[in-house]
Amino acid sequence: MATVAHQISAAQAAREIAAGRLTSETLVRACLSRITERDAHVQAWAFLDHDLAIAQARACDRSPRRGPLHGVPIGVKDVIDTADMPTAYNSPIYANHQPRADAACVAAVRRAGAVIMGKTETTEFANNHPARTRNPHNLGHTPGGSSSGSAAAVADYMVPLAFGTQTGGSTIRPSAFCGVVGYKPTFNTINRAGLKIVAESLDTIGLHARTVEDVALLAAAASGRPMPEFGRRGGAPRVGLYRTPHWDKTDEATRNLIAEVADRLRRAGWSVVDADLPPQAVAVYDANSTIMQYEEAASFGWEYDNHAGLLSEDLRARIERGRATSRAQYERAIDVVLEVGAMFVDAFRSVDVLLTPSAPGEAPFGLTSTGNSLFNRNWTTLGLPCVTLPAGLGPRGLPLGVQWVGPYRGDRELLLAVDAAAKVLAR
Amino acid sequence: MATVAHQISAAQAAREIAAGRLTSETLVRACLSRITERDAHVQAWAFLDHDLAIAQARACDRSPRRGPLHGVPIGVKDVIDTADMPTAYNSPIYANHQPRADAACVAAVRRAGAVIMGKTETTEFANNHPARTRNPHNLGHTPGGSSSGSAAAVADYMVPLAFGTQTGGSTIRPSAFCGVVGYKPTFNTINRAGLKIVAESLDTIGLHARTVEDVALLAAAASGRPMPEFGRRGGAPRVGLYRTPHWDKTDEATRNLIAEVADRLRRAGWSVVDADLPPQAVAVYDANSTIMQYEEAASFGWEYDNHAGLLSEDLRARIERGRATSRAQYERAIDVVLEVGAMFVDAFRSVDVLLTPSAPGEAPFGLTSTGNSLFNRNWTTLGLPCVTLPAGLGPRGLPLGVQWVGPYRGDRELLLAVDAAAKVLAR
Repeated sequence: MATVAHQISAAQAAREIAAGRLTSETLVRACLSRITERDAHVQAWAFLDHDLAIAQARACDRSPRRGPLHGVPIGVKDVIDTADMPTAYNSPIYANHQPRADAACVAAVRRAGAVIMGKTETTEFANNHPARTRNPHNLGHTPGGSSSGSAAAVADYMVPLAFGTQTGGSTIRPSAFCGVVGYKPTFNTINRAGLKIVAESLDTIGLHARTVEDVALLAAAASGRPMPEFGRRGGAPRVGLYRTPHWDKTDEATRNLIAEVADRLRRAGWSVVDADLPPQAVAVYDANSTIMQYEEAASFGWEYDNHAGLLSEDLRARIERGRATSRAQYERAIDVVLEVGAMFVDAFRSVDVLLTPSAPGEAPFGLTSTGNSLFNRNWTTLGLPCVTLPAGLGPRGLPLGVQWVGPYRGDRELLLAVDAAAKVLAR
Repeated sequence: MATVAHQISAAQAAREIAAGRLTSETLVRACLSRITERDAHVQAWAFLDHDLAIAQARACDRSPRRGPLHGVPIGVKDVIDTADMPTAYNSPIYANHQPRADAACVAAVRRAGAVIMGKTETTEFANNHPARTRNPHNLGHTPGGSSSGSAAAVADYMVPLAFGTQTGGSTIRPSAFCGVVGYKPTFNTINRAGLKIVAESLDTIGLHARTVEDVALLAAAASGRPMPEFGRRGGAPRVGLYRTPHWDKTDEATRNLIAEVADRLRRAGWSVVDADLPPQAVAVYDANSTIMQYEEAASFGWEYDNHAGLLSEDLRARIERGRATSRAQYERAIDVVLEVGAMFVDAFRSVDVLLTPSAPGEAPFGLTSTGNSLFNRNWTTLGLPCVTLPAGLGPRGLPLGVQWVGPYRGDRELLLAVDAAAKVLAR
């Protein structure tokens, strides 16, 4: 058991610990060994204190079960505050910054018994300027971003769970590139107090794990939502295949993968139909950019006015575009979101879940870009729940994911549908 | 000029400074003198450093005009971060806490040239446990809360402008009790980065000043919205008199005041009709409590789990009620808000603005309670813009306000309507 403890799922670990067959200390030490072995290459961790992690594990082992994550380690993206670990947002402006309090989501999982393993690498302020993290499947490739370290750490078996965030495509994209399950819940599912705000209309705390059950478990602990009943099966969900207005930006492997997944579901008796939306739905992509830039210009006002020289050129330019955006343009973008949101309410009348690409293709080569959020930022902007599921390999042998999207607050049914789909695809 | 500088409005001060007829240093020194004279009694300030305020004023006087608030002092509620002043949320848990960055709204007004005068007293974490601040009109009475120091400082001519916040009734109520103009904009008008989060679906940055023009000026600088054209008059707005489901909780003076205001507007040729809403609209009040408690239980998770003994009994109990609230109850409350919100969309088809009480009556006697948010929390929950206007005195000689409410994002028309009403009432 102990030798492969770092590979088991969070749900299994919690069960083993609750049954007295595994200690939190054994599990945490196995994860730390894996990190020691691998992190010089992967560089997923911004802050890690072995003694602090082990001390938390021992405290769990000494105390009665506190909750559903008792003794289970979790990585926390370094834009989320921790009272006992520095939080630097991958910006020299905040080097060694030590928050006074835990973010709400960190406090919630501590209450559920989790061990806060350490802080995972993020792009600068969860924007575009890359983290040093590498894709564990091929160190020459980006792991995606902005939750680069969270996705890579989970993919590389350093930790079974991690918090990320998503303002454009920051949870789903790195999860797809690293071959893990990524879940961006419905907007306003997990409380954001203690998150370094990027764009408050968009920022969403996301989750990385290696199974659908695990992201659901973490979401339940962090949000107070009940756990979906994965054991109980209903009828197969009705799937809408949504190619998006940007289908031409996908590579052949991605298009083939989507077709193959649809085909295998159909052969398993599922209904898979094409989901078409009015062409005006394309406006939501530009709306995301407008909203993000406008809100970032406000939220990073202090950093820009006092430390512009310590910001990346990319972020500086984005803030400047935001300052050049008028309030009227911003409000028009919000109106577009409401209009397109209504189209998706209609779309979900005839299907339960949408099947759509997680990314244009595999993780790009190199570390200078974290890839494209084109297949994610529309969902973030609409506030709809999304899950990416690893479903194959691309031409260079890197993971490919497919994305599943549910209606507003339909997270429970979405997670059940993706879990069922994963079981069909695993046959 | 200089001897009464602390009494002039922010807009007038900005014009005098721009014209070279007043220096920021003279203005700031006049305000500091007023504070020195009065604050031992009123106790509006949580942090004040004369030298720091004067240094900012001198920097303004030396530099070209930076923006519409150039040289004008402003108070900042002590739940809003400042990089150069401690921010303690009126909680011993955060004694001497020094944030790294300015909140977005502070950075915005600094960019517009404002002098950050100091931090104003707040109830504990902008909740119910009172600040030490007293009502400047009668020191035996509460100034209201939670933005107690902001409202009192503006009312007592210590500063022409102040930032507050509102999650229930925290801007409008103290403004009414202290006899100043209070303005809670449409939800998502002023960026909240750097605000200590109470309830993220409700928290709104609010504004205190002594004129409608001044709250509009501050909102424009803080939000990037254009300034309404107060000079240009259109037709009189159509007013709906909305007694709310809690009319029986108002005192006689308040009911008479509302009737008198309606009467004077009618005599000036305005249309004032009764605004009736379906009885189900009453559900929004309970929805506010449910949402606030549920979200506070999350956002104050760290404080409760680590420092419960340093929280007030009131806040501790609220967090415990939040923890006992299920996610399903919380989501039902959000549904209620959407349903009642649709009723108000209908209500605003036939009127431009609602006239309604700002509070049940005068500021209550004593400092153990900051009064009742019953006439405010519905509007906060619905995200609608509100302005309170001083309009008379109650039986004990304390100020009474009347509240004006506009449709979603109808802030410009609302401010123009309230300014026009103020001019009618001043005749």
